[in-house]
Amino acid sequence: MSSQTTTMLSARWHPPSYDIRVEDVPIPQIQDPDDAIVKVTLAGLCGSDLHIYRGQLPIDKIHITGHEFIGEVIKLGSNYGPNAAQPASGRPDLYATLNVGDKIVAPFTVNCGECHVCRLGYTGRCPAGALFGSPKLDGGQAQYVRVPKAGGTLYNLSSHTSWSSSINTPGADFENHLKGIADSSLLLLSDILPTGVFAATQLLSHPKMQPVLTGRAWPPGLYSTVANNASMLSEEDRMITIGVIGLGPVGVCATVALLDDLARRDLPYRVVAIDLNESRREKMKKVYETIHPDGKGSKGEFVVQGFEDAKATVAKWTGGVGCTSIMEVVGNNGALTSAYELVRSFGVITSVGVQPPKNVPFTGQQLYDKNISLDFGRCPVRAMFPMAFELLVRRQDVFGKVGTESSLIDRIVGLEEATEMYRAFDKGEVGKVLFDPWK
Amino acid sequence: MSSQTTTMLSARWHPPSYDIRVEDVPIPQIQDPDDAIVKVTLAGLCGSDLHIYRGQLPIDKIHITGHEFIGEVIKLGSNYGPNAAQPASGRPDLYATLNVGDKIVAPFTVNCGECHVCRLGYTGRCPAGALFGSPKLDGGQAQYVRVPKAGGTLYNLSSHTSWSSSINTPGADFENHLKGIADSSLLLLSDILPTGVFAATQLLSHPKMQPVLTGRAWPPGLYSTVANNASMLSEEDRMITIGVIGLGPVGVCATVALLDDLARRDLPYRVVAIDLNESRREKMKKVYETIHPDGKGSKGEFVVQGFEDAKATVAKWTGGVGCTSIMEVVGNNGALTSAYELVRSFGVITSVGVQPPKNVPFTGQQLYDKNISLDFGRCPVRAMFPMAFELLVRRQDVFGKVGTESSLIDRIVGLEEATEMYRAFDKGEVGKVLFDPWK
Repeated sequence: MSSQTTTMLSARWHPPSYDIRVEDVPIPQIQDPDDAIVKVTLAGLCGSDLHIYRGQLPIDKIHITGHEFIGEVIKLGSNYGPNAAQPASGRPDLYATLNVGDKIVAPFTVNCGECHVCRLGYTGRCPAGALFGSPKLDGGQAQYVRVPKAGGTLYNLSSHTSWSSSINTPGADFENHLKGIADSSLLLLSDILPTGVFAATQLLSHPKMQPVLTGRAWPPGLYSTVANNASMLSEEDRMITIGVIGLGPVGVCATVALLDDLARRDLPYRVVAIDLNESRREKMKKVYETIHPDGKGSKGEFVVQGFEDAKATVAKWTGGVGCTSIMEVVGNNGALTSAYELVRSFGVITSVGVQPPKNVPFTGQQLYDKNISLDFGRCPVRAMFPMAFELLVRRQDVFGKVGTESSLIDRIVGLEEATEMYRAFDKGEVGKVLFDPWK
Repeated sequence: MSSQTTTMLSARWHPPSYDIRVEDVPIPQIQDPDDAIVKVTLAGLCGSDLHIYRGQLPIDKIHITGHEFIGEVIKLGSNYGPNAAQPASGRPDLYATLNVGDKIVAPFTVNCGECHVCRLGYTGRCPAGALFGSPKLDGGQAQYVRVPKAGGTLYNLSSHTSWSSSINTPGADFENHLKGIADSSLLLLSDILPTGVFAATQLLSHPKMQPVLTGRAWPPGLYSTVANNASMLSEEDRMITIGVIGLGPVGVCATVALLDDLARRDLPYRVVAIDLNESRREKMKKVYETIHPDGKGSKGEFVVQGFEDAKATVAKWTGGVGCTSIMEVVGNNGALTSAYELVRSFGVITSVGVQPPKNVPFTGQQLYDKNISLDFGRCPVRAMFPMAFELLVRRQDVFGKVGTESSLIDRIVGLEEATEMYRAFDKGEVGKVLFDPWK
């Protein structure tokens, strides 16, 4: 940017509700030695932006919206440089290795990367964290954005280190790693793709999933404890039946992550993907057809249905027993109730939707009677980056497209259209929109 | 029994409530070829018997009470015998190997051992199941009891096969296996000890426990994904802090199972065991002192407190972060609320208490905001027998005693005292009571 330029284009939310304005504001500056300033190349509009848009949160501060963005580092605070993160310093590597000009992606929340919580991998709950596009921290729907604790927060797409940490893809072409991967695809890393991978990982790593995944009966750790001393479970016993409730962009990502994991385990499965919205169901079908044209490469059955049809399908598939587990990607009591209805005894319900401040719709007795396990909460995006990145590269057939029947991204528009796009997105008139602030 | 004897002593519940009568009833007979008739040597009185006693369940049928018993097989149905369970038959081994005269223990529920649910290890939810001491199936507080599906249900204490399946105890003395183990100790296998082991196993196998247990950050399956690329977590990061809420007999068993597992992993830990009842807290302290006299053999800190003190302890231990996980062994909303207060973000709450038909006391937002995982439900006792049996043998210092300050069993009385013992147990005037129906 020229030294004369001091303002930038931004989308800002105004209280009380339904008021997004495209406005010139000062370009953000370094405020703390750990900060980075990023030139935004693309910013996403996400379903959870609508909570603020609609005035559903107790917020009255005007702020720049958006928690999904990718871009290029243009300025670094004084804590960056080759000597910044020697092993003795205990600081994240990025303080030593991040350079002006690097292409980066940020998670939707800041995290320091050096506290106990971050070290455990629970980066979405870092006590120093803040959500981009909130009153506490301006968002990425602008030409520039300030990233606090950038050495802990950012993921450097220009670095081979990031790529080689994708340990499950030996032999991947690291030399030409960014070639052919569009920015619109990389933008998905900021939220929805890691969140989908998180849902699938959380589900598949649950101990109650291990009998069907490994062939060893519950309890975990003992080879077999069932009455007939069978050494391994039969193929029939191991049939995996999974329900996915909610086929918005995160639900589709979660389903792709799940199918990808199951295919790599080479296990047979049955998945029913559920949404009440027909256009979402059609999108999900197209995505499946992209991954497994005519069912090729799949050992599974995959159907996309509304809830009542799905209930009948699960009853038929399992003889009335129910799904092994459910991914709930909606975030309301209707979806949780449906999940409970569909899941079997000793089943798992993994919920990644943002939940409202209402009591969850379960009695203790209902949960006891079915031996239910539940997972809730926000994806620790920073910790999920390597797995999500790997899936992004492997499934460019799904994640690399814009504006097709099977693409997660509907269109890319200029930031001037933000007011209209928020309105249309809220009404369900458009799918996922990305803003190019320089268009 | 002599062929003349046709009646037996039993404790029976009469509607509507608080009415246990010691009565002569007909000795049960084989009704189905899979049945066994067991002569009861000891039967336990358990906290959950009080739900029926108090008339809290919608039940009006007179029936024999009690779901905890051990005894000796005196009669077998026609489906038993050496040719009954050839591999081709697919039936549990016990149909071929169980003999009249064998000493057995039964789980508190019947399970067939041959359906899909049983094969997976989820025996507590077998569709052919029934709870002993319910209107559907007479209980064990009697001189004899009929055991349906006995080949799937029973655990044969006279068989070396049962013993050698305790794979974690190489070199144990299988030849003299029952020597020195009192019946009162074996009785604990019918419910409370496996349920305690279940709680600890469910907790420790949860993926959110793996970072502290293995030293590898979340997500599971990737070596390390945190920002600073640390290869392994530090000792400080791995400090395990666990809360146990509820120190009744199951709570004590759960705590012993937990401490035993942690000691065998040789990991440092901090455990706070919580109950509002002072005599329960004293018992817990004595048990800990038995296992680790003067703290020997332990890498842990262990304190027993009321809830408010425990809150302060956890805050001090963890700098306000909270417990890694909680075992909830009460089964009501107060305990669940306390568990939520004590647990950290990305924490696990494992509940094994029988829960009431009330909404659980959490909003979706609360669960989302702390990334909580929850497990509910009944212990699949049959599947837990090998692990529980092993712990019983290893911890005879705790489980082998009766009527001492550190013993789980308060006294052994004749069945004629059942009316009075129910009354006293309900009032908290006695601890765990066993009935000897032949005393």
